Amino acid sequence: MEFEKKEITKKSKDFSRWYTDVILKAELADYTPVKGSMVIRPYGYALWEGVQQRLGQAIKDSGVPNAYFPLFIPHSLLEKEKKHVKGFSPELAVVTHGGGKKLAEPLVVRPTSETIMYPLFAKWIQSWRDLPFKVNQWCNIVRWELRTYLFLRTLEFLWQEGHTAHATAKEAEEESLGRMKMYQDFVEGVLAIPTIVGRKSAAEKFAGAENTYTVEALMPDGKALQCGTSHNLGQNFAKAFEIQFQDKDGQRRYVYQTSWGLSTRIIGALIMVHGDDNGLVLPPRIAPIQVVVVPIDPEDKEQMEYARDVAAESNSALRRADQGSAATIYIDDRSQYTPGYKYNEWELKGVPVRIEVGPAEVRENAVTVVRRDTGEKCQMSNVKCQKEIEKILNDVQENLYQKARKFLKENIREVEDYAEFKKVMTGPRGFIKAFWCGSSECEAKIKEETRATIRAIPLESESASGRCIYCGRSSSSQVFFAQAY
Amino acid sequence: MEFEKKEITKKSKDFSRWYTDVILKAELADYTPVKGSMVIRPYGYALWEGVQQRLGQAIKDSGVPNAYFPLFIPHSLLEKEKKHVKGFSPELAVVTHGGGKKLAEPLVVRPTSETIMYPLFAKWIQSWRDLPFKVNQWCNIVRWELRTYLFLRTLEFLWQEGHTAHATAKEAEEESLGRMKMYQDFVEGVLAIPTIVGRKSAAEKFAGAENTYTVEALMPDGKALQCGTSHNLGQNFAKAFEIQFQDKDGQRRYVYQTSWGLSTRIIGALIMVHGDDNGLVLPPRIAPIQVVVVPIDPEDKEQMEYARDVAAESNSALRRADQGSAATIYIDDRSQYTPGYKYNEWELKGVPVRIEVGPAEVRENAVTVVRRDTGEKCQMSNVKCQKEIEKILNDVQENLYQKARKFLKENIREVEDYAEFKKVMTGPRGFIKAFWCGSSECEAKIKEETRATIRAIPLESESASGRCIYCGRSSSSQVFFAQAY
Repeated sequence: MEFEKKEITKKSKDFSRWYTDVILKAELADYTPVKGSMVIRPYGYALWEGVQQRLGQAIKDSGVPNAYFPLFIPHSLLEKEKKHVKGFSPELAVVTHGGGKKLAEPLVVRPTSETIMYPLFAKWIQSWRDLPFKVNQWCNIVRWELRTYLFLRTLEFLWQEGHTAHATAKEAEEESLGRMKMYQDFVEGVLAIPTIVGRKSAAEKFAGAENTYTVEALMPDGKALQCGTSHNLGQNFAKAFEIQFQDKDGQRRYVYQTSWGLSTRIIGALIMVHGDDNGLVLPPRIAPIQVVVVPIDPEDKEQMEYARDVAAESNSALRRADQGSAATIYIDDRSQYTPGYKYNEWELKGVPVRIEVGPAEVRENAVTVVRRDTGEKCQMSNVKCQKEIEKILNDVQENLYQKARKFLKENIREVEDYAEFKKVMTGPRGFIKAFWCGSSECEAKIKEETRATIRAIPLESESASGRCIYCGRSSSSQVFFAQAY
Repeated sequence: MEFEKKEITKKSKDFSRWYTDVILKAELADYTPVKGSMVIRPYGYALWEGVQQRLGQAIKDSGVPNAYFPLFIPHSLLEKEKKHVKGFSPELAVVTHGGGKKLAEPLVVRPTSETIMYPLFAKWIQSWRDLPFKVNQWCNIVRWELRTYLFLRTLEFLWQEGHTAHATAKEAEEESLGRMKMYQDFVEGVLAIPTIVGRKSAAEKFAGAENTYTVEALMPDGKALQCGTSHNLGQNFAKAFEIQFQDKDGQRRYVYQTSWGLSTRIIGALIMVHGDDNGLVLPPRIAPIQVVVVPIDPEDKEQMEYARDVAAESNSALRRADQGSAATIYIDDRSQYTPGYKYNEWELKGVPVRIEVGPAEVRENAVTVVRRDTGEKCQMSNVKCQKEIEKILNDVQENLYQKARKFLKENIREVEDYAEFKKVMTGPRGFIKAFWCGSSECEAKIKEETRATIRAIPLESESASGRCIYCGRSSSSQVFFAQAY
C-alpha cells in the first residue's frame, strides 16, 4: 500500500508557511477550538520534556528546588507593584465566576507568578539564615492573545520561572547575570542556537524590574527571538510585599530579588533556526529520537533481526558515551509504509541520523548511514558505525551550531547612518549594531519608523564613541537593534 | 545556639490537627492568599516529582506519550456530553473577561480534559491504523472548592490524565481495567499503601462514563480515600464529539474510549497512612531523601570527612542495588543546630534511615543506624552498614506496607444487620462489606443516614447470597461501603 508523501512549503519560498507546515505535518502541535490556544502533540511535547530534563537538571544542580504555586491571583495582589500591574493589565484572563456564583474579588490567571509567590516569601523568610531563598516552578501561563502563531504567540504557554531572594544587592545582581548565562549555555550548548546577550533598555525591561537581562537569537527571516530572560527586581517587590529579614546585626531589611524564565517559545526558535526544505532538523542533544533504524523489508526476518542488533549495539555505544542521558534509537518496523515514505517522514521529523539496513547490508555486515543535516550518505561496516556513532552525532550537533553561528555573524551589521538603518530593516533585517544616545524618545521613534527595538545592550561596552543613529548626539554605547517576534 | 523543637499535635489525640501540623511543620505545603488554593513547597513537591517519575515511567513504558492540551474549554464544548456537563457544572471556574474585554463565549478552566481533547481526537483519528490512540497529560485542574483541606480538597490540584481510543469495546474495557491495576501496583508497590479495587456504582461513577474502576485506601481515622480512577467511557464521548474511524471493512465506526487519572490527593494518603506522633514516615521508594547522615559535630574535620565517606559509600551501594533510580543521601552539616534538633527535624520529615556519626563511630569505623519506622537504633561497622543499607531500606518499605495492610484487614467488617452498619459507621468506621440489592434508592438512603457510600463493587463476585443491608431483598453481590474523603 502506498501513502501520499507529506508535502511542505519550501523554506526559501514562504518562510512563515513553511514554519506552520513543519509544525502541523511533523505533528509537533496543532490548532484547537480555543481561539489563541494550541495543543502540543507528543512529538512536540517530547522536545519540551527534553528542555525540562536538561535545563531542569541545571536548575536543580544550582541548588534551586521545584515547587508549585496557585494558578489564580487575587486582583488586589497583582496591584501591589504599580509598574507590574500596569505592564500586565492588558493581557489578563479574569475569572469572575466560581462554583456557580459571582466572585467578590475577581481572580487573574497568572501571567507570571511574582505577585502570588511573594506574599509567601514574606511569610517564609524571617532571618538571614533563610537567605538566599530560591525556588523554581514549571507551569502554564496565560497572556491574552488571539492571533495564534504556533509556539511563538499563544494565549497559553508553558515555562519555568525561577525566583530568588538575597540579603544584598550584589548577590541579586550576580544571580540574575548567572541565570542569563545559564540560559545562554543551554540554548547554545543543547539547542545549538548561537545567541547574543545583554541588558534590556528601560522601555523593554520586565514590568517591575530594575534590570532585565536577555538571551537573543536570530531567526532565518532576520527577526530576533528572545530565548529566556532574567530580571534583577531589586527591592521593588520586597517593598510592595513586605519581604523583610532580620540581618545578623538585628536590623530588619528588605530582600533583593530576581526572577528568570524560559518558555515553550524556544521550540519555535529551534524549528526556525535549523529546519530546511525537507522539514525539521534537530540537534542530537534535544532530539527525542537520535537515530532511526529503517529495515528495507521489515517482513524479512533476517533483516529485522539484523536491524535489531544494529539498534541495540548503537544504543549501548551511545549510553556508554553519554552516561545517564537517554540515547533514543527507534526501529521503524511498520510494514504498511514503503522505505521511501519512511525516509521522508523521518526527515520531516528531523531525526539526526538514519541507518538503513537492506539485503546488501545484512550480507556484508554493514549499514548505510544518512545524516539529516548534510544529507551525506555512506556505507560502512557495522563495527565502524558503532565506533563512530557518537562522533557522528557530535558532528551533527557542532555543524548545526556553526552553520547558525555563521548566519548570525553575517547578519550583525554595524550601521552609522539612519537611512542605511531603515534600508537594512526593510531588506535583509538581522541585528544592527549602532550607537544610541540612551534616550527613550529616540528608541520610540526608531521603533515607530522601522519596527526595530533595542534587543540587547552589551554588558561589556567596548570603549568606542560615535553618534546616536537617530538624533546624532554623541554616544559611547553601541546596542543591538532588530525587529522581533 | 539552640532552636525551639517543632511541636506537632499527637496523631492519636487529634488526627485532623496532626495532619495539618505535619504538612505545615514538615514544609510540605502551606495556605495561600487565594481561598481554597494551597502552595506545594519544595519538600512536598519532591514527593509529587517522585510520583511523576515512577508512575510516569510506567505510563510511558506502556506506550503512552505525554502531550499538553489547553487549560481553557469553551462552554459549548463542555456541554456536548450531557451527563458530563451536569456532573461538573457546580464546580466550574469561569473566565468571562480576557485582554480587557468581555468574552463572547465564557471559557471554563478545565475540571478534567475530555471535552477539550476529544475534538482533536476526532481530527487526528481517521483510520483503524490510527488506533489504539493513547495520550497522557500532567497538568493543573480546577474544581471550585473553598473549604481547603491541604492536598485532599483544594480548588486547584495537579494530576495526570490518560486518554485512549480503541476500535473495540473489549479493548477499551481491558485498557480501563489495566490502568486500575497500574494504579494499584504503584500505590501498593511504591507508596506502600494497601488498597481494595473494584467498580463504582452508577451513582458514584464519573460523569459520562459507562464504568468507573477505582483504587481505594483506608485512612487511620476509618475513612476511605480514592487513589486513582479509571473510566471506560464506551462510545458516549465518541458520539458527542464525532470521533469515527474507517474500519478495515471500509465502514465508519465510533471509537471506544477510556480516561484515567491520579492526583496530588495521593500525597494526603501517603501522609495519613504512614505518619506517626513524630511526624511523617516515608516509604523509601518515594522518599526524596532516603538516608540522612548526621555528624554530631560538623565543625570536627575528621568527623565530617568520615561522614562524607559514609554517605558516599552508602550512595554507591544503593545505586548499584537500584540501577538508575535516584538514591538520595543527605549530609546535615549545619552547625547552627544541635544534633537533637536535627534528629527531630528529620523524624518530622519522615526520612527512612538516619546514620549518626560521632567520635565513637569515627574511632571504631562504625555507624549508628536509626530506622524511622520502628525507632530501632543499632551500632554496626561501616562495612556492614554498606552491605545492609539496601536491605534495611527494603525492610522499612515492607514493614510500612505490612503494618498498613494489617490495619486495612482489621478494618474490613462483614456486616449483615443495618443497626450494626450504623453503629460501625459512627464508631470505628473502616470498610463494611455488605450485601446490596443494586438499587440507587437503598444506596442513597444509606448515604443519607450514615454518610457511607459504596466505594467499590468487587470485580470477581464470590458466589454468595444474602440480603440487602438496607431493604432486605435478596442479593448476590457484596460491596464495600465507607465514609470517604
